[in-house]
Amino acid sequence: MTEKTIKLGHGSGGSLTRALIEETLLRYFDSPLLAGLPDSAKVQLQGVPAAFTTDTYVVDPLFFPGGDIGKLAVYGTVNDLAVVGAIPRFISCALIIEEGLPQSDLRTILSSMRQAADHAGTEVVTGDTKVVPRGKADSIFINTAGIGAFRPESALPDAEMKAGDVVLVSGPIGDHGAAVLSAREGLNLDSAILSDCAPVTEVAQAILAGARRTSFLRDVTRGGLVTILNEAVGGAPLGLLLREQDIPVRPGVRSICELLGLDPFYLACEGRVAAVIDAESAPIVVEAVRRTPAGQDATIIGEATAEYAGEIVIETAFGTHRLVQMLSGEQLPRIC
Amino acid sequence: MTEKTIKLGHGSGGSLTRALIEETLLRYFDSPLLAGLPDSAKVQLQGVPAAFTTDTYVVDPLFFPGGDIGKLAVYGTVNDLAVVGAIPRFISCALIIEEGLPQSDLRTILSSMRQAADHAGTEVVTGDTKVVPRGKADSIFINTAGIGAFRPESALPDAEMKAGDVVLVSGPIGDHGAAVLSAREGLNLDSAILSDCAPVTEVAQAILAGARRTSFLRDVTRGGLVTILNEAVGGAPLGLLLREQDIPVRPGVRSICELLGLDPFYLACEGRVAAVIDAESAPIVVEAVRRTPAGQDATIIGEATAEYAGEIVIETAFGTHRLVQMLSGEQLPRIC
Repeated sequence: MTEKTIKLGHGSGGSLTRALIEETLLRYFDSPLLAGLPDSAKVQLQGVPAAFTTDTYVVDPLFFPGGDIGKLAVYGTVNDLAVVGAIPRFISCALIIEEGLPQSDLRTILSSMRQAADHAGTEVVTGDTKVVPRGKADSIFINTAGIGAFRPESALPDAEMKAGDVVLVSGPIGDHGAAVLSAREGLNLDSAILSDCAPVTEVAQAILAGARRTSFLRDVTRGGLVTILNEAVGGAPLGLLLREQDIPVRPGVRSICELLGLDPFYLACEGRVAAVIDAESAPIVVEAVRRTPAGQDATIIGEATAEYAGEIVIETAFGTHRLVQMLSGEQLPRIC
Repeated sequence: MTEKTIKLGHGSGGSLTRALIEETLLRYFDSPLLAGLPDSAKVQLQGVPAAFTTDTYVVDPLFFPGGDIGKLAVYGTVNDLAVVGAIPRFISCALIIEEGLPQSDLRTILSSMRQAADHAGTEVVTGDTKVVPRGKADSIFINTAGIGAFRPESALPDAEMKAGDVVLVSGPIGDHGAAVLSAREGLNLDSAILSDCAPVTEVAQAILAGARRTSFLRDVTRGGLVTILNEAVGGAPLGLLLREQDIPVRPGVRSICELLGLDPFYLACEGRVAAVIDAESAPIVVEAVRRTPAGQDATIIGEATAEYAGEIVIETAFGTHRLVQMLSGEQLPRIC
């Protein structure tokens, strides 16, 4: 008798993760608030709506070009609140520290969290510290939970997708994955790739305020652009057709991908959103997003179509169409 | 040059933990909401007050007499909300899983969390799952954050302590520590000690509703009764005099402590509160707490006195007085 165990791929953010969550967490926690696995739950506190989310950060290495685990832990949770239309307000900070972590590393990480919280307009208000023996964790893991507020006039990403709607991405994809990977593999590259790790609150608000209809809004994290867009089309009567030439990928990220045989479309970001909005609003929304610090390179990369129901198809530079699927196992473990 | 590192004792819940938190977390996160290190932060969401807390659970072993890491993860966070006077409402569940964890263990733990959440009247509404390679964690760690609501008429534990106030404990102490320890050490005892792991919401509400003044209310966790009571007297013009004979300790817990050379006054609980209330209300409050499922053995164990400012003193069965201090290093690592 073989016993089923948890595999690394279950943490990829792709289809194995999805299956694990469906078979375990969603089975035992069958709250309607969890249905559809939104980035944040929408709860009511004495009639006041709020967003509530949690995320643990296990990135390896702790420090990478453009950021560290502390910055990531704040912005990651801020972004999960932002993409449901909430304004991030309060953050918790729970540390699991492996015995032997240099105290100077801890200070650097906490200082980075504080700066990130200030920059994102949030506050760390509660915390916890656990220490486990050497070999029972990996340096430090950080969990942050977050509470966000909804403005009374908040627009929310809950419209139904229609054929002809367009896909917006708020900037070049894969920077975070490439930065962490180059630090982990000790790659010495001509042009350093910096993580795109940043708060997307303003980007999300610009989309929600500017678009007549927003049918999908998510931050692109584990599993990259294609994995997150699969969430938009799963079981839907429409699919998405993306134009490869229009998907922004920095040359440095492309080089790392070629060197290591990776696909940038599955590479993690930490400061990008992907959205599906009505076509008519698109020019105004792109303009508005480009005025935000994290959205300067926003662009439209494709559209919703009835032709490929439930699927994501990429139109290559040669005009051919290829089907792309959700990541199944792990491409890159411990990217966030 | 030697580099300062994090030691196991930094996770004890005692004075080393306190020093680490003061030197690091409180230095970088200088929010007024963190001052005094309450079990939960009191935040305002559009004018509605709420409690927000976080805790990570790294208990070893995962399963112990009377509970498991899942039950602990729910009640621990529920209790951090309860002792600030809040009614626990929403819980998050973030898992760090070590590659190789049997999926059956995960199911058992999640099922246990669900039961605990139902029992405590809360709901798990958001979650996260990370998987790390073998040897980079220890089976599973669970973080739960929680949001609690304050009733408009809520009494809060914020009165000033006065000489003659009495110390209440809601039941026998050290059961959780003894249960985990006996499971970890494979002790085969005549009488199995079960963890006291339970929600204390009703206990806390009974104290707050019944006492004219509640100057201190905490759940007794890491570091045990004496460590938590030290929080009541730190820097205060009063101290606490406890009567050893009145402090409830089960015979089985006493035996384990004698066997292993431990002091039950520092042994963790997971379903007990310690409170300091006005003496006049004490009889009514003890009566009310005893009517709650987790408080049947509530009792008064001592009083506030100007004689030992800032200190905790135990009067022994022989009438002698001994000073007890906050735990400095670790007595028992990974107890919660």
